[in-house]
Amino acid sequence: MRTAVLALMAGLIASPAFAQSKEPILLRDMGSFHVGGRLIEITGQPVKEIVFTPGGVPAKVDPNGTYQVEQMYAQYFLVQNRKGKLPLLLWHGGGLTGATYETKPDGSPGWLNYFLRHGWDTYLSDAMERGRAGWTNTFKGDPVFLPLGDPWERFRVGPLGSWNQDKAKRVTYPGVQFPTDAYEQFMKQGVPRWVTTDDAIVAAYIELVDKVCPCVVLVHSQAGSFGFKVAEARPDKVKALIAVEPSAPGSKDKVAALKMPIVVIYGDNAKTHPRWGKIRQNVHDYVGLVRNAGGNVDTIDLPDLGIMGNTHMMMMDKNSDQVADVIQKWLAGKGLVE
Amino acid sequence: MRTAVLALMAGLIASPAFAQSKEPILLRDMGSFHVGGRLIEITGQPVKEIVFTPGGVPAKVDPNGTYQVEQMYAQYFLVQNRKGKLPLLLWHGGGLTGATYETKPDGSPGWLNYFLRHGWDTYLSDAMERGRAGWTNTFKGDPVFLPLGDPWERFRVGPLGSWNQDKAKRVTYPGVQFPTDAYEQFMKQGVPRWVTTDDAIVAAYIELVDKVCPCVVLVHSQAGSFGFKVAEARPDKVKALIAVEPSAPGSKDKVAALKMPIVVIYGDNAKTHPRWGKIRQNVHDYVGLVRNAGGNVDTIDLPDLGIMGNTHMMMMDKNSDQVADVIQKWLAGKGLVE
Repeated sequence: MRTAVLALMAGLIASPAFAQSKEPILLRDMGSFHVGGRLIEITGQPVKEIVFTPGGVPAKVDPNGTYQVEQMYAQYFLVQNRKGKLPLLLWHGGGLTGATYETKPDGSPGWLNYFLRHGWDTYLSDAMERGRAGWTNTFKGDPVFLPLGDPWERFRVGPLGSWNQDKAKRVTYPGVQFPTDAYEQFMKQGVPRWVTTDDAIVAAYIELVDKVCPCVVLVHSQAGSFGFKVAEARPDKVKALIAVEPSAPGSKDKVAALKMPIVVIYGDNAKTHPRWGKIRQNVHDYVGLVRNAGGNVDTIDLPDLGIMGNTHMMMMDKNSDQVADVIQKWLAGKGLVE
Repeated sequence: MRTAVLALMAGLIASPAFAQSKEPILLRDMGSFHVGGRLIEITGQPVKEIVFTPGGVPAKVDPNGTYQVEQMYAQYFLVQNRKGKLPLLLWHGGGLTGATYETKPDGSPGWLNYFLRHGWDTYLSDAMERGRAGWTNTFKGDPVFLPLGDPWERFRVGPLGSWNQDKAKRVTYPGVQFPTDAYEQFMKQGVPRWVTTDDAIVAAYIELVDKVCPCVVLVHSQAGSFGFKVAEARPDKVKALIAVEPSAPGSKDKVAALKMPIVVIYGDNAKTHPRWGKIRQNVHDYVGLVRNAGGNVDTIDLPDLGIMGNTHMMMMDKNSDQVADVIQKWLAGKGLVE
């Protein structure tokens, strides 16, 4: 029994999760900014009298005039002891915000803290329209709100048909790494999204890259196509691109620009899932064009490395540090770690 | 000339702004979480097929089912060398997010970094409905979007009638401390707000306080009434309340609960401004009731301390560190600093 406990402790001490919980984070600076967007004019609307707080003093608000729209938000954490050679930008997926990379739904540290503790100056952003970026009623179409069960199957916690409102009846993929007890907590991170705003999102990301890069960009899910498109537009500034389960490719007619190292990473069950199999093939076809044009793209299916059970939200999975280790090793292999 | 430069440098070294820019921030931990909210049921809606990314693979989304609504978001920064005896919670005003307290629109450090560098464990939050808290289409009424010029006068950068689209023609109060060159940058921080959601916002704040307090709560503007109401509901957990230009009071029938030290702070021109004069009087009447019930409330008009030119957004004003010094000194006076 004592030997087993000691072995367990030795394992914990060696694991990144243990290191994450104990080492302080030393920052030479931290802060935030909004970037991008544009001014638009609204005319012909009636002046409103608004009581902003019940029982408060009414204020006249003239809705006509100039409005700030389509900016994005970024928060930066600059480490005292840099080991990453370039800033690392973390871009979240659809219907989510930068909180994706912060503390995981189960309360343990996520990739933001991992990369800070590995010496990366890190920029955590909220895409145009999401989170602290703000939003306006000037976007086309209606925003999409996801019901509680939707990501359970779409993000591959369980196979199609596995969601159940009753926690005890929910089915998962075997050995799934997502912290299923924290699924409801994960769903608190959700924000509405439009499906008509990609161009404005990419425009704001380009302004972010122009402000803080050269850099490494790590993208997830919806931000996959944003990462590819911004790298196509700013190949001199995006020095490496890590695409974690990109949900769509970039522009097939612009692949010649992509000469920076790129890695595409998929979790478990991506090949066989009815929807993810198609998504993966679309991205694979795009990656083929990048390679044919002389580009340098690695594809990592985590199960091929013996890392099983990862969902679409691998930065929140129980073994997220193990997945981050794969990324850190890839970055080191590209000469991007001191 | 040399003497003048040396004198200038001596002034810089002694100033909090200089200290802020040089000292590293040492954190024993940082992270975030969502808290509060509830689940609601939506029924009778048609299933939609949504292409989330142009050119992507369509997904069927059944909008019927259970939705997570009304949660809030908090980010925490826990300092290695604590000097504040309790955690400090920073609550932003209406139409804004936690970004209020981060880097100021002119790019210099704000109150978050100030209080971290003064040894406070700090919780920066986005109220229910704002920023990373997310929002849903279940709130009553329409969201309010502010045109570019609206806060210029309403937040007392300049007097009524002083806004002009042309930067060169904008008028300010004499000696105003707001960084007027960064006004457009400030407006990028804005997010929509509803005026019907106060009860849900307060409910989420109470859950935040139940999770992380006993604590000191610092509120601004719209969060003024939230701070008073949460302190009324949790007088055992809110150990001190700093109300920076509260836009409305708490509940007059619950003042007997407020025995913790409270300070209400106003900037320049608040007494004479047509709208702020009324707001200030409403809060003053409430404070009178708190005092009559045995409560302990200080009121600070910054001009009475010789601190002139502060706007409603004093945490973004050029002398924001000077205003924070007033708060820090008040906290020390209440025995809340080691």
